[in-house]
Amino acid sequence: MPQSSEFDLIRDCFSTGYPAASDLLLGIGDDCSLITPPADMELAQSIDTQVAGVHFPADAPPGLIAGRALRCATSDLAAMGAVPQGFHLALTLNNSEDWFLRDLAAGLRLTANTLNMPLLGGDTTYGEHLTITVAVQGWLPRGLGLRRDAARPGQDIWLTGKVGGAALILDEVLRDPTRDDQYTAPYYHPRVHLSFGHLLLSLATAAIDISDGLIQDTRHIANASGVVMNLDAEKIPTAVSGEHPRWHECLTGGDDYQLLFTAPADARERIEACALTARLRECQIVGEVTAGDADVCVHKNNELLVFSKEGYTHFRN
Amino acid sequence: MPQSSEFDLIRDCFSTGYPAASDLLLGIGDDCSLITPPADMELAQSIDTQVAGVHFPADAPPGLIAGRALRCATSDLAAMGAVPQGFHLALTLNNSEDWFLRDLAAGLRLTANTLNMPLLGGDTTYGEHLTITVAVQGWLPRGLGLRRDAARPGQDIWLTGKVGGAALILDEVLRDPTRDDQYTAPYYHPRVHLSFGHLLLSLATAAIDISDGLIQDTRHIANASGVVMNLDAEKIPTAVSGEHPRWHECLTGGDDYQLLFTAPADARERIEACALTARLRECQIVGEVTAGDADVCVHKNNELLVFSKEGYTHFRN
Repeated sequence: MPQSSEFDLIRDCFSTGYPAASDLLLGIGDDCSLITPPADMELAQSIDTQVAGVHFPADAPPGLIAGRALRCATSDLAAMGAVPQGFHLALTLNNSEDWFLRDLAAGLRLTANTLNMPLLGGDTTYGEHLTITVAVQGWLPRGLGLRRDAARPGQDIWLTGKVGGAALILDEVLRDPTRDDQYTAPYYHPRVHLSFGHLLLSLATAAIDISDGLIQDTRHIANASGVVMNLDAEKIPTAVSGEHPRWHECLTGGDDYQLLFTAPADARERIEACALTARLRECQIVGEVTAGDADVCVHKNNELLVFSKEGYTHFRN
Repeated sequence: MPQSSEFDLIRDCFSTGYPAASDLLLGIGDDCSLITPPADMELAQSIDTQVAGVHFPADAPPGLIAGRALRCATSDLAAMGAVPQGFHLALTLNNSEDWFLRDLAAGLRLTANTLNMPLLGGDTTYGEHLTITVAVQGWLPRGLGLRRDAARPGQDIWLTGKVGGAALILDEVLRDPTRDDQYTAPYYHPRVHLSFGHLLLSLATAAIDISDGLIQDTRHIANASGVVMNLDAEKIPTAVSGEHPRWHECLTGGDDYQLLFTAPADARERIEACALTARLRECQIVGEVTAGDADVCVHKNNELLVFSKEGYTHFRN
């Protein structure tokens, strides 16, 4: 258990410097936090845990890890099109030294301010492995949330940007977890498409954030919507070119947190305008939805690619 | 990582058999859960983590532990007087065997049904130590939540029942974590005072649930309200009598989840009526609030007891 000075430090680290929540009535320090929901809105919520040695290198700087955990969790709000309201934090610490707590809180605060996510409440416990659980929430206009079950045949499949950057840099992150530059940014600081996700309400039908790999996550939409998701590999922006020996990992690796979404063809111009507004460089159509048993089909140069868990094999069509 | 059959098992374990939520629009299986807040209510939320080997014996039956974790977290809603809406679950599993998952889910489901807490969503990860994070939420009529900062001089201090049962049985729980009977019930199945907490709205002023020890938690109200909390030890119902060598542990040990609350004297009759309605056996006045620098004073036979971290010493007044 921490000494009382550590309790003070924890309180200092997590009580100030976060964005203010206009709807927060009672924050950290009581049995519960209290907020006032706005009228006629739905509450979108998600919870996400990251464990040292499983989801991130145990010796990574705690501030980078805390910021990344908040980004990964908040991405689920982006995938629904929700406007962020705030988050609760459950932290299991294996280290309560000053520098560790201060670094962790600094990274969390920086990210919370970038994403405009107020810290509403939390729980700090001790354990052998650093474990960060983030429970995020946001508001959605009634009935407009971007669900996984709304893709329909004939619709376009869109992707917000490059995939594979995080997966391909993972070896380097494991080798040097302190490296924090443009190359490790896709891993430590994945872009969270909050404003674009919100702009997509009424334009997109289904949406998901790519956290476990493009193919696997696209399959969630295929299954929930009961459609075939046809992806054109040549149109998918990847961290390395199609000839690169690790190209296929861009389609099966996760952690990029791009949004994949479906939309009717008559929404194309408005989606492109929204992409400009949200300053997306590479938002583009990467396939189309067709009728049939739920499946994902990836084509490259008229070949159907088949991805197995271990990698991928392909058959001529 | 689990095999796909384990994913199926996890889905089976956590998708059915929980109470239904009338306001749930979208549950497990999308990026977020979606609920519709009722008009003119505040949302009360709390998050709570329990780690194997820290908060519970690592070899305890997972169903007992999961049920206990949900009770402990939900107790924070009771302490605010909130009506439960549901919970999100973040589970870090060190064991994905069939029996383990089924036992864990059975215990969780049983408790969720007892407390009427729908499971709204979750995240399952793997790690070396079983870690259970429960994020609970409920609704409160605007402005009526029982906060810690509302105790005022002249008010009574009430306690919902016996303290010390959980602390005194802990040695036995550690010796035989599978023991699940009337003696270990205060530890594994602490009563959550949801209906009584809700009845206290408009009657009580401040409230807290006793999770870390009667004295320490009472001090939270003293500090938040800026008052002296005077407790009369002879009026506090304890698991063992005042002559017992471990009696003081009843006042400093935690885990009983009784509610301690303050209320004006003119609310006494109505509080007693509410206690009858909620079938509380021992709800009683255990002290009074006075003006002064924030403090907790415990008297026994006209002596002022002083509790240190290690135990207690007493001085004649």
